[in-house]
Amino acid sequence: MPVPMELSRIILNEVNDQQFIFLKEIDGDRSFPIVIGPYEAYSIERRIKGDLPQRPMTHDLIINVIEGLGGELHDLLISELKDHTFYARLRVRRDGELIEIDARPSDAIAVAVRCEPKLPIFVNEDVLNDVLREQ
Amino acid sequence: MPVPMELSRIILNEVNDQQFIFLKEIDGDRSFPIVIGPYEAYSIERRIKGDLPQRPMTHDLIINVIEGLGGELHDLLISELKDHTFYARLRVRRDGELIEIDARPSDAIAVAVRCEPKLPIFVNEDVLNDVLREQ
Repeated sequence: MPVPMELSRIILNEVNDQQFIFLKEIDGDRSFPIVIGPYEAYSIERRIKGDLPQRPMTHDLIINVIEGLGGELHDLLISELKDHTFYARLRVRRDGELIEIDARPSDAIAVAVRCEPKLPIFVNEDVLNDVLREQ
Repeated sequence: MPVPMELSRIILNEVNDQQFIFLKEIDGDRSFPIVIGPYEAYSIERRIKGDLPQRPMTHDLIINVIEGLGGELHDLLISELKDHTFYARLRVRRDGELIEIDARPSDAIAVAVRCEPKLPIFVNEDVLNDVLREQ
């Protein structure tokens, strides 16, 4: 079962290129970090701080493409954990069909924080169990 | 009239965040630079060097979204130059319709270099005249 979670924390690290975002269970206390790249981390952080750029940044363009092609973002699912890499899917509704698009969690979350209302974030129970076992 | 052009050069600058890409006329000698950000510049450079990442990078995700929603990239047009800022449009065909998506040239070109065969790049004649007059 997919577990509803939310972005709870971003830790920006200026010493190296590994940045951390934390997802936390909405109806519980489970939480885990995902290591992401600096560009994606700043893209998330800037938007959370309310920084609205004059021109579409790369993750804004993703939303413009989805809307331009008649799609509507439905949710994002972190579906798998393989070899310490998380796999995500942006799920987009179009013409009554739910289309799943393979993405890195960092990009998917940078897209999610740009949605109004907030895009629901789900993490598969298996993924949550695996990552908590590894901690 | 839109003028067919191609990416002719990238200059990566490690001293500051301004990177340069150059577009050159295909049937002529006119050429001009566009200042872009480091993330977009590296995204273009990596792909030109043939670096294929294991997971979709942000500009790969844009292509996956377009394809997932049944669109087909048609070309990219640099349509305007306003206050020293270039404006571009990714043009995507879907269901026989040509959809124009507002983008920064840097993102549009990072998408273009990922297309096989190459995505045609056009620059409006007015833009070319303006930028060459300013040089």
